Amino acid sequence: MFNETAWLTVPQAIRARRSIRHYLPDPIPTEQLTELLDLTLEAPSSWNVQARSVVVVSGQEGRDGLAWATGGQPHPQEAPVTLVFVASSQAWREDLSDIYGTARENGAWNDQFIAGFSQASLDFHQDLEERELLREYAIKDAVIAATYAMITAASMGLATSPMNGWDEGKVKKVIGIEDRDDLHIAMLLPVGRAAEERRHPGRRPLPQNAFDGRYGYGFTPGLTASPASTASATASSAHPDTAAAR
Amino acid sequence: MFNETAWLTVPQAIRARRSIRHYLPDPIPTEQLTELLDLTLEAPSSWNVQARSVVVVSGQEGRDGLAWATGGQPHPQEAPVTLVFVASSQAWREDLSDIYGTARENGAWNDQFIAGFSQASLDFHQDLEERELLREYAIKDAVIAATYAMITAASMGLATSPMNGWDEGKVKKVIGIEDRDDLHIAMLLPVGRAAEERRHPGRRPLPQNAFDGRYGYGFTPGLTASPASTASATASSAHPDTAAAR
Repeated sequence: MFNETAWLTVPQAIRARRSIRHYLPDPIPTEQLTELLDLTLEAPSSWNVQARSVVVVSGQEGRDGLAWATGGQPHPQEAPVTLVFVASSQAWREDLSDIYGTARENGAWNDQFIAGFSQASLDFHQDLEERELLREYAIKDAVIAATYAMITAASMGLATSPMNGWDEGKVKKVIGIEDRDDLHIAMLLPVGRAAEERRHPGRRPLPQNAFDGRYGYGFTPGLTASPASTASATASSAHPDTAAAR
Repeated sequence: MFNETAWLTVPQAIRARRSIRHYLPDPIPTEQLTELLDLTLEAPSSWNVQARSVVVVSGQEGRDGLAWATGGQPHPQEAPVTLVFVASSQAWREDLSDIYGTARENGAWNDQFIAGFSQASLDFHQDLEERELLREYAIKDAVIAATYAMITAASMGLATSPMNGWDEGKVKKVIGIEDRDDLHIAMLLPVGRAAEERRHPGRRPLPQNAFDGRYGYGFTPGLTASPASTASATASSAHPDTAAAR
């Protein structure tokens, strides 16, 4: 493990991160990559089913494949590693006894909790299946893990670029799951040393995307955050139409 | 802004975070909540459209509403604040000139880049629309922001619990968007001071969810990470069936 006190704090990492399209060819040291993957898979997941995984693509063949799958974009070709985040929409049906066993050994869950929890998890997923939301919920878990990877990499001084621009069937072929209807691609994340500097394109002002109690009522620092305050609009909040129309 | 050097590093925050169901009633100081929201909305989004927002629910009426929408679960009732992450699947159609203007002012994007970028964004989203993926992609952006909030809160010593167990229609009603088909609920995140301790239930061993080049080939530290290495299986990698069957 690295000297963690030398890593960036969370706000430092968040403010330092930019989406980088050009990378130096320097490989990522194995110890650092392992720590990155380990922290990535610390990400929480729905019912702790861990229905998401990460494929480390670093060889020439894999990088050529991802270049093909992303329409020739530079970052998966240049970056020494691209992480492919895979979501499994059927993992909840599988044998999860190892997950429950680990939680029991860790003193986190007891037998009674596991009995109720495992049944509730089944019921929850069957309901998702009826509502055709299994893919969406698995993708959400994979995106949480991808975001862990993004922030962890930034904390280590490594650049990344979250990518949505790819052909799902081609990416699946590159990592060998073209015949798996139960597996879905959530995100690609090239990782490496930046070969360019990027300025922050900026974000909209806080009250346009942070709201106070009701959608469209711009959050104004100083008027909320106490349980005693009401969640409904106040005279000082922006009129809903102002922000909601953006 | 807080003294950021006092905040946890990224690995410290990730390892400290547990999903917490019981909260002290202590309000979150406004300055801290504002910083949390600001860092949350630093999250990257597809084409920087920022098609995700967060509704801060803290009043009694809103908390009662979320208790109703989550089937009476304790955390949204007890936590002083619950963040509701909203995804907008139609934001890409709206006027984004303020976003482009900010990026131009920041020296991040020039006019030529903006012209190509804005057209490519339209093409990308029209393709998503044809493939009925607009909701999924907006949800992904909202989940990235929710994960930023989770890790930032942990770094501040605040507890959270990412929640998927809610009725989407009821949550939309609580935040006043029951008539908006273009807005979707991605996640609920109660935030506050923990009133319980939780042990780590654990995660599966790394090679079961981190793979080397191809899905199912367990990642083994020391055998990968160099561009010169091949992405295909080696004799030392786990047989794909071993991990893929889990």
